[in-house]
Amino acid sequence: MKHKLRQHIEEITPLTDSEFDYILSHFTPKKLRKHQFLVQEGDLVKNDYFVLSGLLKAYYINPDDGKEHILQLAWEDWWITDYQAYFNGTSSTLNIDCVEEVQVLCLSLHNRDKICAELHKMEHFFRRKSNSGYVALQRRILSLLTNTAKERYEQLLSDYPTLFQRVPKTLIASFLGVSRETLSRLSQ
Amino acid sequence: MKHKLRQHIEEITPLTDSEFDYILSHFTPKKLRKHQFLVQEGDLVKNDYFVLSGLLKAYYINPDDGKEHILQLAWEDWWITDYQAYFNGTSSTLNIDCVEEVQVLCLSLHNRDKICAELHKMEHFFRRKSNSGYVALQRRILSLLTNTAKERYEQLLSDYPTLFQRVPKTLIASFLGVSRETLSRLSQ
Repeated sequence: MKHKLRQHIEEITPLTDSEFDYILSHFTPKKLRKHQFLVQEGDLVKNDYFVLSGLLKAYYINPDDGKEHILQLAWEDWWITDYQAYFNGTSSTLNIDCVEEVQVLCLSLHNRDKICAELHKMEHFFRRKSNSGYVALQRRILSLLTNTAKERYEQLLSDYPTLFQRVPKTLIASFLGVSRETLSRLSQ
Repeated sequence: MKHKLRQHIEEITPLTDSEFDYILSHFTPKKLRKHQFLVQEGDLVKNDYFVLSGLLKAYYINPDDGKEHILQLAWEDWWITDYQAYFNGTSSTLNIDCVEEVQVLCLSLHNRDKICAELHKMEHFFRRKSNSGYVALQRRILSLLTNTAKERYEQLLSDYPTLFQRVPKTLIASFLGVSRETLSRLSQ
């Protein structure tokens, strides 16, 4: 069976065996237990992470009231990191921790830029991934600006039905930007 | 003096004269008057637009209440379009119109993919632009999730002080997701 990362890249661009081996050599595998941190606020963010298995959340803690706001959830075939810190070489404003036991592949910015410079098709792959990510974030902004909590809940349920079996409701509420009580009303 | 598009691309990657001439040949110039539409809801979105002069807004009209929600503002050196429709070849859910008289350069998806495939450095340029755009949108989402209207107003004023001289207050309010009355209180 093909490696998960290879399947993922080949959704956009085909690779030869030797190209994939070369690309994979720039990644480092990492295993984490449930509740372990992948990135902690204040850390330098050296890697982007491709999720092989498990589920993670990236969140911001508002220093004024200590509330947790989820910026991103990621599971199999998703990428996650604090991108602002990763691309700019600054320290993280986010926390990323494991909602389940997790296996990721770590890619440093140096190695990402290296394989993009050496292999035009990887530059193409990451451009396409970034374009899709940009579109998804624009949709989320529109949803935050225009939709009611109920509409946002229904959109999430329709986009990712299995998510609701995998994560606690407090986490869904924090992702949608609503209280736990509001979510209970919505999901009845 | 160097062409504005060349200056813009060369912030990321240097170009020879012949490379730039070749790249520019894939763009079509377009002039629009104040209040003219660049994209209308329901249109097929054939182009991405690089702004040479003037200011535009991309907005969504909520069919339930007719309210206008601004997704993006763009002026000199920015790119704007309905990216979801552009990348997926679907019709627009947004409107984009001119707040001032505008000059843009139009780039079709076909031509964008062509110059990215032919020139590795253009694939690199657009990857880097998309990464920066992604980070900016993540910041806006965090701001919508965690900041008060007053904090969002002050952030915008600090990021883009000249914007407040160029656009009416109703437009700032719609971008921040607050009412005109709330904005008046904030800006006193």
